[in-house]
Amino acid sequence: MRFAKGHGTGNDFVIVPDYEGRIELSPELVARICDRHFGVGADGVLRVVRTLAAGGVTEGLARTDAEGAGAAEWFMDYRNSDGSVAEMCGNGVRVFVRWLLAEGLAAGPEVAVVTRAGVRVVRAEADGQFTVDMGPAVVLGDGAVQAGDLRLDGVAISVGNPHLACLVDEPVAAIDLSAPALLGPEALLDGANVEVVRILGPHEIEMRVHERGSGLTLSCGTGAVAAAVAAAVAAGEWPDGPAAPWTVHVPGGRLAVTPSATASLLTGPAEFVAEGELSDSLSSPQGEAWLLGSAAQGA
Amino acid sequence: MRFAKGHGTGNDFVIVPDYEGRIELSPELVARICDRHFGVGADGVLRVVRTLAAGGVTEGLARTDAEGAGAAEWFMDYRNSDGSVAEMCGNGVRVFVRWLLAEGLAAGPEVAVVTRAGVRVVRAEADGQFTVDMGPAVVLGDGAVQAGDLRLDGVAISVGNPHLACLVDEPVAAIDLSAPALLGPEALLDGANVEVVRILGPHEIEMRVHERGSGLTLSCGTGAVAAAVAAAVAAGEWPDGPAAPWTVHVPGGRLAVTPSATASLLTGPAEFVAEGELSDSLSSPQGEAWLLGSAAQGA
Repeated sequence: MRFAKGHGTGNDFVIVPDYEGRIELSPELVARICDRHFGVGADGVLRVVRTLAAGGVTEGLARTDAEGAGAAEWFMDYRNSDGSVAEMCGNGVRVFVRWLLAEGLAAGPEVAVVTRAGVRVVRAEADGQFTVDMGPAVVLGDGAVQAGDLRLDGVAISVGNPHLACLVDEPVAAIDLSAPALLGPEALLDGANVEVVRILGPHEIEMRVHERGSGLTLSCGTGAVAAAVAAAVAAGEWPDGPAAPWTVHVPGGRLAVTPSATASLLTGPAEFVAEGELSDSLSSPQGEAWLLGSAAQGA
Repeated sequence: MRFAKGHGTGNDFVIVPDYEGRIELSPELVARICDRHFGVGADGVLRVVRTLAAGGVTEGLARTDAEGAGAAEWFMDYRNSDGSVAEMCGNGVRVFVRWLLAEGLAAGPEVAVVTRAGVRVVRAEADGQFTVDMGPAVVLGDGAVQAGDLRLDGVAISVGNPHLACLVDEPVAAIDLSAPALLGPEALLDGANVEVVRILGPHEIEMRVHERGSGLTLSCGTGAVAAAVAAAVAAGEWPDGPAAPWTVHVPGGRLAVTPSATASLLTGPAEFVAEGELSDSLSSPQGEAWLLGSAAQGA
């Protein structure tokens, strides 16, 4: 099985080219591939498959998205490292589009990609970075979170998924984000990504994120958008500020975000680190047996 | 640059074939390759190089080893994930020899490998596992360690590197090994690997290890030997017990150890998970720039 490994600001992915939709990507196989000691290691898998070969994936989309999907040749089948299905990933879709362009599978500079969250248009920039339309951001209201000894006030924001973005005065690295406990609003008590955000200068912020289900990560595309929205709110630029990007420093690098109530833009790098073939042992039932065997002994 | 990724009981390595010794493997490049988000990700790099092309690597060895090295075609240039040089690795050398055999570079079933700790002979077993002669184990005396709330008594053992192996009655998974503090003997106060070991049955143990400089790991070859020595001492089988192997369950799988004061044997699996080419960006100065840039922002 062919593969590549790449990342966007340290959010890393194994790309599995499967243009005609012939690979059975079971949750167990995804988990094996993403295991950082027994597999290649990654935050998730990006299966590259033609939309027409993806088995009715456009059926669940809204009508306008379904129309767009009809014209979008490629479907990003994104899986989390535990094997579960995911809708969209702002860092992953840049790596996905770089793959399409490098392989000559799309023309660019703008490429429409079908995702489970709808169609996303990604543009290859002249400097080698990629800009993705992350869709609308919605401010839901005020909220708060307990982070270590600190109670932080924040803004509840939806970027398709829920966030609580908290402006702080101290360096974001100094805040205990290992296990933030949401205090409100009600709509977020089932779980949300939590960002701490510090304003460094005009349209420049740093942020760290605790992702729901993943914990502390090096980068989060929707989290970068939420952080920029919170900063724009604080700057009195929301929802009607200048359409100028915010520089967002994340632990894994630097992103640029133009927050918007209709179509937020996220710009950042997409890098490849390796390419090759997965060993047969990884996808064989035998491989499954030894992984389950070792897992049973506890890590 | 060609590469493969493999592991032995979850101790994982990037293999870099460099048969004629042409690759400049700087500490920075090793650290980039081993970075689990910005690189391939591994516990270390195994450069495969002909002994004669390895630049006088045998000069520092003892005379008998230097003679053996003259007849050993391949040198295992092992590097830790931080780029520093390492002497030997009982899990890595099995993966190394499997690579030599798979590539047709050695005949087997016994292959002598030059390492910085001397020549090591590895045997390919009929069941697909590999046995490595880990050299002598030496019991140094009694010692103790503070592990969380527990004060544990143990046996200080040298397997080339220093260990304190502590027999316990409870499941080893229940013991806090996150930051063990050595209390003695004097010889170990500069640092040692700490193992907790529970006897499960006749010649069967489970163990966890905190490795000096690496923390908690899924497996440790010398640690498995030290654990078996401590169990043999407790069973009244040291140094003159039956030459029968102990089954050693580690978090990453299962090893077999025949402890000995002259030549301890370690048997375990060696698996490949992927093979291919590293991207140019990983080994280019540009790659270095972005990695240093992102590291400067803190993770």
